[in-house]
Amino acid sequence: MRFVELISKKRDGQELTPHQLEALVDAYTDGEVPDYQMAAFLMAVYFQSMTSTELGAWTGAMLHSGQVLDFSDIIGAKVDKHSTGGVGDKVSLILAPLAVAAGLKVPMISGRGLGHTGGTLDKLESIPGFDVNQSVERFKELVDTIGLGLIGQTKEIAPADKKLYALRDVTATVECIPLIASSIMSKKLAEGIDSLVLDVKVGSGAFMKDIDRARELGQTMIEIGATMDRPVRVLITDMDQPLGRTVGNSLEVIESLETLRGEGPEDLTEITVELVAEMLNVSGDMTDRGSAKMRLRELLRDGTAMNVFAQIIEEQGGDPRVCKDFSLLPTASNQVEFTAWDSGFVEAIDAQGVGIAAMQLGAGRKTKEDSIDHAVGLVFHKKRGASVKSGESLLTIHYNDDKNLDDVHERLKAAISIGNTEPEQPPLILDRLQ
Amino acid sequence: MRFVELISKKRDGQELTPHQLEALVDAYTDGEVPDYQMAAFLMAVYFQSMTSTELGAWTGAMLHSGQVLDFSDIIGAKVDKHSTGGVGDKVSLILAPLAVAAGLKVPMISGRGLGHTGGTLDKLESIPGFDVNQSVERFKELVDTIGLGLIGQTKEIAPADKKLYALRDVTATVECIPLIASSIMSKKLAEGIDSLVLDVKVGSGAFMKDIDRARELGQTMIEIGATMDRPVRVLITDMDQPLGRTVGNSLEVIESLETLRGEGPEDLTEITVELVAEMLNVSGDMTDRGSAKMRLRELLRDGTAMNVFAQIIEEQGGDPRVCKDFSLLPTASNQVEFTAWDSGFVEAIDAQGVGIAAMQLGAGRKTKEDSIDHAVGLVFHKKRGASVKSGESLLTIHYNDDKNLDDVHERLKAAISIGNTEPEQPPLILDRLQ
Repeated sequence: MRFVELISKKRDGQELTPHQLEALVDAYTDGEVPDYQMAAFLMAVYFQSMTSTELGAWTGAMLHSGQVLDFSDIIGAKVDKHSTGGVGDKVSLILAPLAVAAGLKVPMISGRGLGHTGGTLDKLESIPGFDVNQSVERFKELVDTIGLGLIGQTKEIAPADKKLYALRDVTATVECIPLIASSIMSKKLAEGIDSLVLDVKVGSGAFMKDIDRARELGQTMIEIGATMDRPVRVLITDMDQPLGRTVGNSLEVIESLETLRGEGPEDLTEITVELVAEMLNVSGDMTDRGSAKMRLRELLRDGTAMNVFAQIIEEQGGDPRVCKDFSLLPTASNQVEFTAWDSGFVEAIDAQGVGIAAMQLGAGRKTKEDSIDHAVGLVFHKKRGASVKSGESLLTIHYNDDKNLDDVHERLKAAISIGNTEPEQPPLILDRLQ
Repeated sequence: MRFVELISKKRDGQELTPHQLEALVDAYTDGEVPDYQMAAFLMAVYFQSMTSTELGAWTGAMLHSGQVLDFSDIIGAKVDKHSTGGVGDKVSLILAPLAVAAGLKVPMISGRGLGHTGGTLDKLESIPGFDVNQSVERFKELVDTIGLGLIGQTKEIAPADKKLYALRDVTATVECIPLIASSIMSKKLAEGIDSLVLDVKVGSGAFMKDIDRARELGQTMIEIGATMDRPVRVLITDMDQPLGRTVGNSLEVIESLETLRGEGPEDLTEITVELVAEMLNVSGDMTDRGSAKMRLRELLRDGTAMNVFAQIIEEQGGDPRVCKDFSLLPTASNQVEFTAWDSGFVEAIDAQGVGIAAMQLGAGRKTKEDSIDHAVGLVFHKKRGASVKSGESLLTIHYNDDKNLDDVHERLKAAISIGNTEPEQPPLILDRLQ
């Protein structure tokens, strides 16, 4: 096959056959198709998109470029949740044990943070001893016995996606819905799950800045799931302000533990419960959403979910005492209050600005190679809609190194708006697709 | 500068600055921008095109990536002609000496044939001893003294274009008018010419299959010329059937020599005279087109143009006796008639099919690395519109090797249509742009 002909076919808006797309992905993974041909192909996809059939074949080829876990012999519904990423998004840490407490199996493979967004693996690694690198055998055993495993992506999973993502990053072909959707799905479907719930975040702190694009992404992932016989449900959720009160790894673990004992902030609790309800729904384990959500809140309050989390911490080498004693988690040596410069209402908290401020403190990475400081971050005392008095603390900055502190102050000042109008509070769950 | 940002700017339809485009071309030529980034950029250009300002800067950057000849101290108007390529297109061999006979200077840098189209250099090399590789100093001396030089592209001219063309060839970004136009213009403007006449061919044997695309290409080259202060004129000409009677290198040289003594076929004579008239026009050396064309035909008949051709053959190491004695040119060892299978009119001769048949005989190259046989080719006795009787010869096949002869017959049979309707003869010159 002459691959240049596949590029021109796509360029001209013709549909490629599944066989052609599989050959292209395979040859690219094997190094037979050079980066420059794939780069031209990806840019053609940017302009011409992909049909449902093409997307299924393309995703399938990436999925089968590596190891696909088979958990079919594990009893129970295997469901995972994926978030497109946000600021203060520690949902996975609460959701995974809560879903297991509710009877699901959660084989969760997560990623690291980059730029203004955080990553589940970095948060888990704040817990002393917690090891996200587990063999596939051990991962399977954990899912079978505890009901969940929390690991990082291995290089055996979807290597084609890894290679393609690196190329997209340097060829301006990241912001392309079929490529985003197929990338996520190829990794998630390798987890051996039966179904998937997606949290597509929209707003200043999210990858998707407007709701129409978020809906399109969600719909595309549902389509891909359908071609692979894996039901996918999508919640579109607000990411205009950070989720919960904390941004920063160790601080987010503390907030997650508070939420796991039923004492978390309402936005974080609500979104987690909604997502787990959706996981039960897609697995066929939910009859009535209202009573399901009540039961989930009860599993937080009565310690069942916390108990699952303590178990998995212990099984993955961490110290489960952190669940009760937060002082065992990394703590920053300095704290300083960031105070209101005026009286009024907190009208907006730009999530992206807050994410970048946290990154500058050391909580996040500017490039993949950067190391992070698990202890540092931000704790908000006032969220959107709160009334403040001039001089009152808006948030506490936890830091170890003061070299970027002036920058961080400036970023936060720019990110937070104080005004005279009490802002409308948009709903947290903006839409639900299936 | 982060080049990925330039790719996304182009992808999003924004205009790049001249400085950004120059930096991109320079960095690509120097190997700082990898092929995969340029491939993505080229595909984005395919979809988003370029503005006139962008095209000027892009072409200028390719032009200045290498040596730009300066012939400003040579007296007289320096004009060249470029054809987008066709089948049986031997115009340059007649046009160059005719233009010089009419008082112009013609520094002509030509290319080789590929696929179904022929190349001027291959035709010239049919002449025993003719050397198309001349130093820049010698080329300049020839233009100064004889009035013309006929050489091949040196690697010093527009190296950025050479590198880009090779990349476009394997990334499905060849068929893109701004990229075609800038590629041609960057090479032609390196010749030290004051102005340029373009023969944009349209039809089955041409690169452009429809006249609207041909006009768009012509207009784009005029625009680029304007940004560089180099007037460009364009003739759009018919390439639905081969030009003249012969296809094949040595055979085309013979036909050119016949035309240079005023005995060529009318289509070839007409197009050559029209193009030289346009060269005079763009140089400001023509007052009345009608009388200019009459004078040009006279310069063919009276031997003035032939005399110039004999001179340049001698100066570039060839044997000028070929002008009178065609037996000094390579001759194929076998000839066979290709006869009409029916009586009627020749309704059409598909130029591309004929070009491929000639290539299969050895007259052309399938890939750049192939060698060619100068002696072989086709001599037509019947062109479009001729009436034929069954069994009468349509053309003579000149061949050395009979291994592809069956294929050649089949191709020719498919390329030539005989029917009962006398076809309309479209004009040879379809349009004129300036």
